[in-house]
Amino acid sequence: MKYDEVLIMKNRITQLQSWLKDENVDVAIVTSTDNVFYLSGFYSDPHERLLATVIFKDDEPFLICPMMEVESAKRTGYPYSVLGYTDTENSWELVYKEIQKRTSTVQNIAIETTHMNVERFNIIKSMFPNISILRIEDCLENMRLIKDETELAKLRKACELADYAIQVGIETIKEGITELEIVAAIEYELKKKGVEKMSFATTVLVGANAASPHGNPGLTKVKKGDFVLFDLGVVYEGYCSDITRTVAYDHIREGDREVYEAVLRGQEAAIQLSKPGMTCAEIDLEARNIIKEAGYGEYFTHRLGHGLGIGIHEFPSVTETNPLVLQKGMVYTIEPGIYIPGRIGVRIEDDVVITENGCEVLTKFPKSLQVIS
Amino acid sequence: MKYDEVLIMKNRITQLQSWLKDENVDVAIVTSTDNVFYLSGFYSDPHERLLATVIFKDDEPFLICPMMEVESAKRTGYPYSVLGYTDTENSWELVYKEIQKRTSTVQNIAIETTHMNVERFNIIKSMFPNISILRIEDCLENMRLIKDETELAKLRKACELADYAIQVGIETIKEGITELEIVAAIEYELKKKGVEKMSFATTVLVGANAASPHGNPGLTKVKKGDFVLFDLGVVYEGYCSDITRTVAYDHIREGDREVYEAVLRGQEAAIQLSKPGMTCAEIDLEARNIIKEAGYGEYFTHRLGHGLGIGIHEFPSVTETNPLVLQKGMVYTIEPGIYIPGRIGVRIEDDVVITENGCEVLTKFPKSLQVIS
Repeated sequence: MKYDEVLIMKNRITQLQSWLKDENVDVAIVTSTDNVFYLSGFYSDPHERLLATVIFKDDEPFLICPMMEVESAKRTGYPYSVLGYTDTENSWELVYKEIQKRTSTVQNIAIETTHMNVERFNIIKSMFPNISILRIEDCLENMRLIKDETELAKLRKACELADYAIQVGIETIKEGITELEIVAAIEYELKKKGVEKMSFATTVLVGANAASPHGNPGLTKVKKGDFVLFDLGVVYEGYCSDITRTVAYDHIREGDREVYEAVLRGQEAAIQLSKPGMTCAEIDLEARNIIKEAGYGEYFTHRLGHGLGIGIHEFPSVTETNPLVLQKGMVYTIEPGIYIPGRIGVRIEDDVVITENGCEVLTKFPKSLQVIS
Repeated sequence: MKYDEVLIMKNRITQLQSWLKDENVDVAIVTSTDNVFYLSGFYSDPHERLLATVIFKDDEPFLICPMMEVESAKRTGYPYSVLGYTDTENSWELVYKEIQKRTSTVQNIAIETTHMNVERFNIIKSMFPNISILRIEDCLENMRLIKDETELAKLRKACELADYAIQVGIETIKEGITELEIVAAIEYELKKKGVEKMSFATTVLVGANAASPHGNPGLTKVKKGDFVLFDLGVVYEGYCSDITRTVAYDHIREGDREVYEAVLRGQEAAIQLSKPGMTCAEIDLEARNIIKEAGYGEYFTHRLGHGLGIGIHEFPSVTETNPLVLQKGMVYTIEPGIYIPGRIGVRIEDDVVITENGCEVLTKFPKSLQVIS
């Protein structure tokens, strides 16, 4: 972390501590990879081993991780203590001792209830038999909802790389190439550019395969007249981008342009409407109604979009029922789609950040219907 | 699933039911992707959405998944009922109703305590206020420990593809190529062959980078005299392979051959000793002592190996303290390594299955020290 990033991280801890004070929580034990990264700058997924940052209402936090990761954790610039444990040590005992050192009375503990498993939960309850357990994820999700300039800089870079990935994918299209070969070509070029990780499994779907919003790339080959759908993202310094583009190969089959244009009109209208004061529901419905009016309402089968940042799916959830009011610094996807079973799937997706008066579109790859030949 | 696979799956359920009877458990709610696949043949990761197979002591099981996945679940050939739910339905209420239909008294429920999160746990406890909760993972881990012929056929194929991946990686090595470029080339060729998923992030580490057993590939370039370490695996029909090979580029630096030969001797001795009746600890110590005697004991910093199958890390854990006796059908990795900080890392890994009188080595790529030029 650079110096200003350490300050930002310290500020997040102060913010969390003030929540702990308000809720009268003595200790927060945060164990999910994403939230540990958010609160420490250290990204690691030690699987079944314990990784946690422990935050106190009125004392300094600490980080605990497997011994072999202590050096990497310290190198990130984390300004508080880092505890390591070997495979033969009881990591929870160390947590217990460290908590005892810093606070004599533990009555309320906050955990991520949607992340922590029952086994760990039982360990905590046996260490502190009379405590109450509170849920901390809402507090953290709300903090993560508003991105600062450092985060936005990383997201912009992740989106730039996603744009490049789409370009590579489109240049790879030729008759007879399989979905998986296009995926391979995209990831090859990105790795050559130094990208270590995609946000999720790169998706390329051809023709009717794209009619399943959760389809997996396989050995289907590109034929003339097919639409090819790309959905992918890149992780840059811990932050995820997410983009979808759909293009035609060789020519456009009858009726397909109408489907594409309906999605595009809905997508652009939702971008147009994205600004402080609007609700998530209003943004979703804007696109949904346009697609409905074009006669494809029943084929737009998912929400308009989702927040993104350290996680590929985070707050806000852009659904037709979410009353959340948009604020400056919120980042989310706008990705309407039309999926006609057995025939075609079209989705167009951008990442946007809410600004003072509107929004900035972070993904910039052109969206007018391209015919590749 | 083919017909015999459906029979195998039904047999697994019968086995689990007899455990439920022995432990006097009325219902088992299994929610991890791997165990649901093991007990239903349906592989899906619906993230925060619920996927579960529910098994009863003395009634037919059912599967519950998001509505949009019901068709895929049925297509696998699952012979029992599949329930779907939409995003606006309460999936746990459906589970509750379905359980009520099949059994009137619910006193004991088994769950995967290391997988189920606290939020879901609380939902279950609120649905069934007076129940006792039991841990089911040991039972399932023990069942998965012994692989049948159908599983072994898939593992053999996954290992064959892993061998091919190593060959591709080695052929890619040239002066100045980066770790990530080699990773990209390997995954490109595998995707072209139709491989949808690697067992884990493909690892290629050059020179001193390989001295960290958990290193990530980056922009380090291959130089003459470097050792290049490959660690990768392929998923074939839900089963994972895992292989590591280390080769030298252009020439072998002084002292490096000795390190390599110590690892190889340890690895081959552990394979030689792998047979029914031996313990995991004996296998681990066989390799560990050889490496110790060669003077590198302090640099072999991890266990000898781990089980693999549907999961990339499963039972048995091959450590110097595990008294588990090897039996026919157990599959595990044998992967000793020597990691000298700042200088070199060598690891050699094969996957083996215990047979009647010894073991079969599933990964077959040659292991004598190769110098690539």
